[in-house]
Amino acid sequence: MKTDTLVFALGGLGEVGKNMYCVEHGDELIIIDAGITFPQGEILGVDYVIQDFTYLKENESKIKGLFITHGHEDHIGSIPFLLQMVNIPDIYAPNQAMGLIRRKLEDRNIRYDNLHVYTEKDVIKFKNMEISFFLVTHSIPDAHGMAIKTPNGTIVTTGDFKFDLTPIGPMSNLYEMARLGNEGVTLLLSDSTNVLNEGLSKSESLVDNALNEIFDSCDTRIIIATFASNIYRLKHILETCKKHGRKVAVFGRSMDNNIDISIEGGYITSKDVLVTPEEANKLKPSEVCLLCTGTQGEPLSALSRIANGTHKSIKLQQSDIVIFSSSAIPGNALAISKTINKLCLQGVKVYTTSSLSNIHASGHGNKEELKLMLRLIKPKYLMPAHGEYRMLKEHTDLAVECGIPRENTFICGNGDVLAINDGVVRRHGTVTAGDVYVDGNRIGEVGNAVMKDRKIMATDGIVVVIANLDTNTNTLLNKPNITTRGFVLVNENQDLISELEGIAAKAISSKLSSHINYADIKSNIISELGPYIFEKTGRKPIILPVIMNVKKDVKINS
Amino acid sequence: MKTDTLVFALGGLGEVGKNMYCVEHGDELIIIDAGITFPQGEILGVDYVIQDFTYLKENESKIKGLFITHGHEDHIGSIPFLLQMVNIPDIYAPNQAMGLIRRKLEDRNIRYDNLHVYTEKDVIKFKNMEISFFLVTHSIPDAHGMAIKTPNGTIVTTGDFKFDLTPIGPMSNLYEMARLGNEGVTLLLSDSTNVLNEGLSKSESLVDNALNEIFDSCDTRIIIATFASNIYRLKHILETCKKHGRKVAVFGRSMDNNIDISIEGGYITSKDVLVTPEEANKLKPSEVCLLCTGTQGEPLSALSRIANGTHKSIKLQQSDIVIFSSSAIPGNALAISKTINKLCLQGVKVYTTSSLSNIHASGHGNKEELKLMLRLIKPKYLMPAHGEYRMLKEHTDLAVECGIPRENTFICGNGDVLAINDGVVRRHGTVTAGDVYVDGNRIGEVGNAVMKDRKIMATDGIVVVIANLDTNTNTLLNKPNITTRGFVLVNENQDLISELEGIAAKAISSKLSSHINYADIKSNIISELGPYIFEKTGRKPIILPVIMNVKKDVKINS
Repeated sequence: MKTDTLVFALGGLGEVGKNMYCVEHGDELIIIDAGITFPQGEILGVDYVIQDFTYLKENESKIKGLFITHGHEDHIGSIPFLLQMVNIPDIYAPNQAMGLIRRKLEDRNIRYDNLHVYTEKDVIKFKNMEISFFLVTHSIPDAHGMAIKTPNGTIVTTGDFKFDLTPIGPMSNLYEMARLGNEGVTLLLSDSTNVLNEGLSKSESLVDNALNEIFDSCDTRIIIATFASNIYRLKHILETCKKHGRKVAVFGRSMDNNIDISIEGGYITSKDVLVTPEEANKLKPSEVCLLCTGTQGEPLSALSRIANGTHKSIKLQQSDIVIFSSSAIPGNALAISKTINKLCLQGVKVYTTSSLSNIHASGHGNKEELKLMLRLIKPKYLMPAHGEYRMLKEHTDLAVECGIPRENTFICGNGDVLAINDGVVRRHGTVTAGDVYVDGNRIGEVGNAVMKDRKIMATDGIVVVIANLDTNTNTLLNKPNITTRGFVLVNENQDLISELEGIAAKAISSKLSSHINYADIKSNIISELGPYIFEKTGRKPIILPVIMNVKKDVKINS
Repeated sequence: MKTDTLVFALGGLGEVGKNMYCVEHGDELIIIDAGITFPQGEILGVDYVIQDFTYLKENESKIKGLFITHGHEDHIGSIPFLLQMVNIPDIYAPNQAMGLIRRKLEDRNIRYDNLHVYTEKDVIKFKNMEISFFLVTHSIPDAHGMAIKTPNGTIVTTGDFKFDLTPIGPMSNLYEMARLGNEGVTLLLSDSTNVLNEGLSKSESLVDNALNEIFDSCDTRIIIATFASNIYRLKHILETCKKHGRKVAVFGRSMDNNIDISIEGGYITSKDVLVTPEEANKLKPSEVCLLCTGTQGEPLSALSRIANGTHKSIKLQQSDIVIFSSSAIPGNALAISKTINKLCLQGVKVYTTSSLSNIHASGHGNKEELKLMLRLIKPKYLMPAHGEYRMLKEHTDLAVECGIPRENTFICGNGDVLAINDGVVRRHGTVTAGDVYVDGNRIGEVGNAVMKDRKIMATDGIVVVIANLDTNTNTLLNKPNITTRGFVLVNENQDLISELEGIAAKAISSKLSSHINYADIKSNIISELGPYIFEKTGRKPIILPVIMNVKKDVKINS
């Protein structure tokens, strides 16, 4: 029996974001992508969510390299954290992604020298795996799919893609996909992001036309909010401005970064239209376009500040036109509406995809494009990737329509392992996988317990019980002090607080003896106070007992 | 300088139908397809329109063979006429088409032995040309595109195609198209039929679903009218009947033929559901389905006879359901409406694509499919084929969107020649091309003059002037006789007829002399009668003078 080839995701399944797929054969393991995801509303105070690297740490010696499909945050964002925790011998990425990775590592002062730029022509060979690449169309240049030849069959991962037949950038490499399909592909991992959308996705060329029409028809100042990650959109906005004799001022660090790197890479050439905000303010409205972040109504974004009138250099003018060249990411609808309402209140004309559908196109393919991918690659098995469960499910239905037997489709979660043996794929247990929260730039300091506490505090608040013990006499020095936050208004609930202080005093006193057990005291405080608080208030705040050993003259103030 | 490779159409450009494309290099010429078209309304009494074979006759010695892309009438219909007029050394056709060709030749008692069935795996080589094939999805099995390698570059013709990602039959060979594109294609001839339709064409699988739903929901007799040429439709109608326990009686010779040949070829396997009309009449309504021709309201079709109550074996029942699994061919809307109204008048429920859009799908690709073809084949030059001029024009616009320079697109008419030299295509004069009318099975007996006469007679009628001359005395034997058809009612216009007879008599007498010039007499009759008739009636009938040399005792009766 041959050695199995294992395929699993440490991120990207059951979610849109934090992509990381692994292929392992014997003593070799390659990682595909290392992305972050941004926390959903209910994850409080967390900046990013990254993968659980436990499996990689435990199998560090096997790791041959990290392969990046393209330069979006959900595919490269966790690289700095990965490099800090796991030894990665080499990183392979296409040009545009590499520019973004370099900047990311510099920003965090991470020195890492083994960065290799790949192109479609390269083949990277290891003992048991051979990795080749093919261009796909996406909203960022240099997006690639990959083929991994193993002793058990070929695995293809599409990366993020659409089939845009009139793209702004290069076409997908249809030939290479068809060639791989003709040679025989055992397992396909394919992008599921837009599988719920019928037909074909909109061509980026239509967006180009729509923007040109707006520019043709107006001579006032134009403010465009779009995704900083959509390089082709930035490219044709700059080109449209150039054609219409407008200068462009850019607002937002991520947008600045992406434009810089795209200019370095030669993807954006019309850099002569760029001006500073100060220069823009000196031009006539018809000569200027402001390009900014903030499509999702993010409170600190350039657009939100402009809408609020709090932007340091840009004041809204009533004749301004604001274009949201973007779609709403689920969950952000309220924040976006808030920004749009503020803009409208000031008499500004706002275009969104609701009023003018062609001002945005997604970078991910719809149903028919996913079918075309299935027909080109002709895989024996499909593992839908990059999507929530309902998307993965729908993607398997498409595969069945395209002639793949239902039993050859695998809906997996992060950590679920598929084993390939001689062209046959089967389920094969799990590896550790999960969400790791990053607060600021520190990994893992925000664990699940912390998140649980934050959730409780967010709904029910905290009750801190501070007791001073005289370590000489093992007695309470004074009545315990109760301090609360997010629980009840102290001034209006003095009686309750007093009662709680009394209960806490009893709970402590009953546990005082010659040999003090602090844990025992704390747990007794919690078990006495908890039910009483719930009975009185219907809340279950976090109860945090703090026992202090003090000298007699210390006085605690809340 | 290399010898040019010439590419031109003898039919199929500026029209939908009578396809025939030629590729010529030095002393070798291959013909692709030999189709008929059916006459439009204004061509009276003509059964088919075929190509003008003058160029082929003049270059007979060069002809290496006729290659058929697929078995539809507009691609194979003129083969019997071609074989009668031009020496064709060999005919190459795929299996299903060959079955239809064989039957066609048998029907006309044409013995021709050089028929060769090709498959995708075959390559036919001549001195300067090498022909290979690739499967495309269309509404008939075994539809192919072809690649012709020449010393000046590769020419690809798509035949008729759609990209159906969930077809009933096999998928288009995406790999072979991409492979050809990767190797380099100089000139593409691509199907333009549905270029005016946005997006993607409907999948044949949707039709299958729609029919299944109707069958699921009804227990009365079902009558389905569809195109006899849509083999996949016939196939899934038979299969749907089988699944629902219904027997099928087939009406219409072309449908019978197509089903027979499809059973022979193994494309249709559920032949056990077929019954005779008599057997069908003995079954309960819920056990029977009648499959018939007549989607275009053709007066003699099975469906029209059923609707009229004149069908010899089928009487309409009020509970019947009639499904038009078809689209209206332009020009037929009135005839179709007439049939539908007759059916509705009898209380029958009628489904058409207007009421249930998924009961028909076209076999030709829409805009996005044509773009995909352009992106797969990546030709340097495009000559849109198979379509009216507005379609060919639109197709060149698509090509420009897909990155082909405008000057590399050629909108040609039948007979326009493109010359390829070392990968460069230019216009290069014309060859003889045109419409030849076939009345019954006789070629060319219906010329343009005949058609002109028919048109005049159809609107203004004919006036026959018969004069009897005594050849001994060179005198009129009696007053000329005037007989008319389609002109005026003779009984109500005796005066006019008498006047005309008088004028004719004068016109003849004035030209009588010892040396009679018959042409002169005839033309004088026409020039005297014509203006007078027009003045009196506002009509310009054909005036047909007949001068007879007779013995004195002959009497002419009208």
